[in-house]
Amino acid sequence: MGNPREHILQTACNLLEKQGYYGTGLNEIVKESGAPKGSLYHYFPEGKEQITSEAVLQAGKVTAQRIQDGLSGDGNAAKAIHDFVLNIANHVESSDFAAGSPLTAVAMETASKSERINLACRDAYTLLTAAFREKLIENGYTKAKADEFATFITAAVEGGIILSRTYHTGNPLRTVAKHLKILLSQ
Amino acid sequence: MGNPREHILQTACNLLEKQGYYGTGLNEIVKESGAPKGSLYHYFPEGKEQITSEAVLQAGKVTAQRIQDGLSGDGNAAKAIHDFVLNIANHVESSDFAAGSPLTAVAMETASKSERINLACRDAYTLLTAAFREKLIENGYTKAKADEFATFITAAVEGGIILSRTYHTGNPLRTVAKHLKILLSQ
Repeated sequence: MGNPREHILQTACNLLEKQGYYGTGLNEIVKESGAPKGSLYHYFPEGKEQITSEAVLQAGKVTAQRIQDGLSGDGNAAKAIHDFVLNIANHVESSDFAAGSPLTAVAMETASKSERINLACRDAYTLLTAAFREKLIENGYTKAKADEFATFITAAVEGGIILSRTYHTGNPLRTVAKHLKILLSQ
Repeated sequence: MGNPREHILQTACNLLEKQGYYGTGLNEIVKESGAPKGSLYHYFPEGKEQITSEAVLQAGKVTAQRIQDGLSGDGNAAKAIHDFVLNIANHVESSDFAAGSPLTAVAMETASKSERINLACRDAYTLLTAAFREKLIENGYTKAKADEFATFITAAVEGGIILSRTYHTGNPLRTVAKHLKILLSQ
């Protein structure tokens, strides 16, 4: 199982991704991770808020890395982002529509409810946006344009994930991929 | 208070908007609405799943109507949609970042957890998308193009709401407004 702290955090990520912050109980994290309850309190003495904040931030790091890897190479940004979003569509479909990102639901649920988790969600989204922005700057966009497009891409992809999960098909994400490509190809 | 059934439903909408499905308890709906608990079970004998399904669908109808009203008149679709999304940005800011739509969080939380609520979320998103699509068709888009753009607009706006709530500023939605206008003006 590797590092037990990491294992608890990964379990929390998976549960938060499927059912959000309020839908996920500490006991469920303990049960699913197979960790003794004491070790959960040992590693996360501040409980569910701490685990969720760390899980969200870790998800942000992992996703930002995936974006960087997905967009690496010297292809142009429009095509790279298009292909990356198609991969998300396939991933959401193959996960039986439970996958997406723990970020989305947690961010909505806690935006005005927990300052600590809210700040972690901002950090996580900032990592995602930065990963898109860097590819755009590499491709010759000005910093200001890259900033705006990166925010727009992040919004469209997040919304596409929600629609794909809701309709149980990757097609909304495929539509997002197509139109981002059109916008970025101008 | 008008119709007590409607009043309970509106209270549920407000709570779901702020804190999602799992964050909202039946007792909280009873307490906030001021309705006697018996009347809640009288109007919604199937409990929280029933209330949530109906609340989500009602939110979809109200939002679709707002989209239709916001886009009415003979202005072009690109400008009308741009202005409509700016209004959402202002609305999210003036609500202290709790507003948005009960749909978003509930859709994410329940996509693979409750078939009944999931179907209600689909119906609600279909109403929103149809409201955008109609404006586009009125403006001369082919049906196929209007379908795709409407899905893309809905995704970008949903994602923009998430980012605006998370960052506690309407700016991500303003960026979405701007880029949708660019895309639709082509």
